Amino acid sequence: MTAYEIIQKKRDGRELSAGDIDHMVSGLLAGDVADYQMTAFLMAVFFRGMTAAETELLTRSMLASGLTIDTSSIDGAKVDKHSTGGVGDKLSLIVAPVAAAAGVSVPMISGRGLGHTGGTLDKLESIPGLSTAFGPEEFVALVGRVGMAIVGQSPDVVPADRRMYALRDVTATIECVPLIVGSILSKKLAAGLDALTLDVKVGRGAFMATRERGEELARALLATADRLELPAVAVLTDMDAPLGATVGNALEVVESIDVLRGGGPSDVRETSLELAAQMIDLGNAASDIEEARRAAARVLDSGDALEVFVRFVEAQGGDPRIVDDPSLLPRASITAPVISAETGSVTAIDSLEIGLAGVGLGAGRVRAGEAVDPAVGVVIETPVGASIGAGETLAVVHASSEETAARAVERVLKAFTIGGEVPPDGTRVLEIITQKQVSGRS
Amino acid sequence: MTAYEIIQKKRDGRELSAGDIDHMVSGLLAGDVADYQMTAFLMAVFFRGMTAAETELLTRSMLASGLTIDTSSIDGAKVDKHSTGGVGDKLSLIVAPVAAAAGVSVPMISGRGLGHTGGTLDKLESIPGLSTAFGPEEFVALVGRVGMAIVGQSPDVVPADRRMYALRDVTATIECVPLIVGSILSKKLAAGLDALTLDVKVGRGAFMATRERGEELARALLATADRLELPAVAVLTDMDAPLGATVGNALEVVESIDVLRGGGPSDVRETSLELAAQMIDLGNAASDIEEARRAAARVLDSGDALEVFVRFVEAQGGDPRIVDDPSLLPRASITAPVISAETGSVTAIDSLEIGLAGVGLGAGRVRAGEAVDPAVGVVIETPVGASIGAGETLAVVHASSEETAARAVERVLKAFTIGGEVPPDGTRVLEIITQKQVSGRS
Repeated sequence: MTAYEIIQKKRDGRELSAGDIDHMVSGLLAGDVADYQMTAFLMAVFFRGMTAAETELLTRSMLASGLTIDTSSIDGAKVDKHSTGGVGDKLSLIVAPVAAAAGVSVPMISGRGLGHTGGTLDKLESIPGLSTAFGPEEFVALVGRVGMAIVGQSPDVVPADRRMYALRDVTATIECVPLIVGSILSKKLAAGLDALTLDVKVGRGAFMATRERGEELARALLATADRLELPAVAVLTDMDAPLGATVGNALEVVESIDVLRGGGPSDVRETSLELAAQMIDLGNAASDIEEARRAAARVLDSGDALEVFVRFVEAQGGDPRIVDDPSLLPRASITAPVISAETGSVTAIDSLEIGLAGVGLGAGRVRAGEAVDPAVGVVIETPVGASIGAGETLAVVHASSEETAARAVERVLKAFTIGGEVPPDGTRVLEIITQKQVSGRS
Repeated sequence: MTAYEIIQKKRDGRELSAGDIDHMVSGLLAGDVADYQMTAFLMAVFFRGMTAAETELLTRSMLASGLTIDTSSIDGAKVDKHSTGGVGDKLSLIVAPVAAAAGVSVPMISGRGLGHTGGTLDKLESIPGLSTAFGPEEFVALVGRVGMAIVGQSPDVVPADRRMYALRDVTATIECVPLIVGSILSKKLAAGLDALTLDVKVGRGAFMATRERGEELARALLATADRLELPAVAVLTDMDAPLGATVGNALEVVESIDVLRGGGPSDVRETSLELAAQMIDLGNAASDIEEARRAAARVLDSGDALEVFVRFVEAQGGDPRIVDDPSLLPRASITAPVISAETGSVTAIDSLEIGLAGVGLGAGRVRAGEAVDPAVGVVIETPVGASIGAGETLAVVHASSEETAARAVERVLKAFTIGGEVPPDGTRVLEIITQKQVSGRS
């Protein structure tokens, strides 16, 4: 089969063989398949989809394109959490130390922010001295010593994803379930995990705008992980409004520490504990999910999780004093309040708009590779459900210039909906989907 | 709009604007749109199709990418015939002189064979000395002097089609009606035509295998030509069996001359006369289509068309003596008969298989740019409907080596179906579709 014939086969809706898929993936790296053939293929996949078998084969081919990290020297279960990305999503900074404090090893490979969604590596690098650039061996050693590590992707791991993602990014083929599944799971399998908790976000600020689409992605991820013998669970979480009160790198680190101290916004605490509990359960560090939930709350409230966090910061070269003295973190030179013109209740905060306001301030990037400003961002003072009077403060913008501040104030104001009716108290955790439910196995 | 947004728009089934389409077409040539973006776009068009307005805009953008030939110095109506390609399709060699002899100017730009389908330029170049490489000005002068010319595409005319076709050819996006329409009509409009007769072939040896698909293409061609104010008519012709008795370049020239002398296979004569009559009618060189049909038959039977052919060969540098002495054309060193093992009637001859046998002999090419052997090919001795006895000759293979001859004999034999029932006498002309029928105008 040539690339032409494989494209044609997918175009016509026929099922691809292992050899077909491998020819496209390894051929792209070897130069036998041209970029312009790969993008036609990816668009055909967008329209035709992939069967469960094809998605598994795609993931396997992508995984085989690079190195797999050997985590066998780490004691106990290695469990990671992956989020599909959101606004104000600082959960990794809390979930990883909570799970590690409860006895699970967390080898977490994270990414950077792009567009309105933030990235864990950007947030962490706002901590003075902290590095996320470690090779596979150092990474494994860090997890063994601290119980967790959060690092960037090594270029030797799943190079096919790097090439394919760059092409998808410029050809409108990102939003395609089998391609998303292949991209996420190949990288997670390459990290030598025993199990994986998936945080699939749905809503305005998420990649999947509707719950239906989020469920579709979650089920495809779980089914493919099952075929690849990777135990996994998916938590569908609401991303209509920003998570917690802060959007911006250093601002989110401060909020994470607040939660690790037992305070902080309740939605961040609640969602972090559920995700950590699922990791603890998957890693068999508790007898069942209820015991895992209790263990997660216990290590958070006891300060054990905060202690792991301090050790993690120190191990990766960061200044651990930031935990007690947040003023050591970068701070914006300008703060500007966002003032309500109306009286009523906050009924919605558009997380997409808040995320884009953050990008405008320099907290995020439009293109991969751009630098971010660790200090800037948005702090929400009046969350969804709270009442507000005309002239009172909805949010505070942290900026590096009067000009970017003014633009962000305007955009953040528009993101708020003030109404008469207070929406019912919602939980962020919409649904938990297990692999058993998806695979139909008992 | 960026290329990304335009791909996304088409992917999601929204209608593209003139600016969108022009950005893709002119951006490809300017380097603002990458090949890998164009191929993703083309695959999205394959799945989503194009509206009549989009197809018109695509054709206009492609046309605007290069030069338009100024044919205003040529007297009378300039009318061309375009075929979607077939096996044994030597009709241009007959249709053009017949139409020219009846008073229509025929500025014909033709192509070369690829795969199982032959090309008019290859056939003509089997005539010693004949050239098809003339610049636009020489081309116009030839048509003005002789009444017809048949030349190759100049690289300055529709360069966008050259680039897009090369990409479609390796990404399985050839078989897409709006892209075919844009490719054909942009080139025909660039040739400065007043009207166009389309020969849309359907069947085994055609690009469109079914009559339904052929009608779809014909209607899209006519509707788009109408929007571009190019009068046109489509003739759907049967391409299940090879056209006439010969497949191969010099062999087809000889057969064409036979028809121009008033002889030759009846299907070639009948189809040529209908296509020429449609050109004469479109060019207003007759009062109506019936009169045009009579005029076509008259100039063929009077020898006027043959006389135009002789002048055309001479004007393009070819040796006109081939008309009276076919032995001056290249001849194959080896001839091998294809012998029937059965007794019965020939019920079908698979034109795709005959075309591929021709490619195997060297009469056609697998890849663009390859040389062809003018002498080789296949001559069918027993056409569809004729009876055959075991041990009698079905066809004769003309080859350059014993090895290729043996392979071709085997392949040609398999192309014949011998049965008991003789199929009803069929006409090649299946249907004539007018622009009026398609546009709904009166």
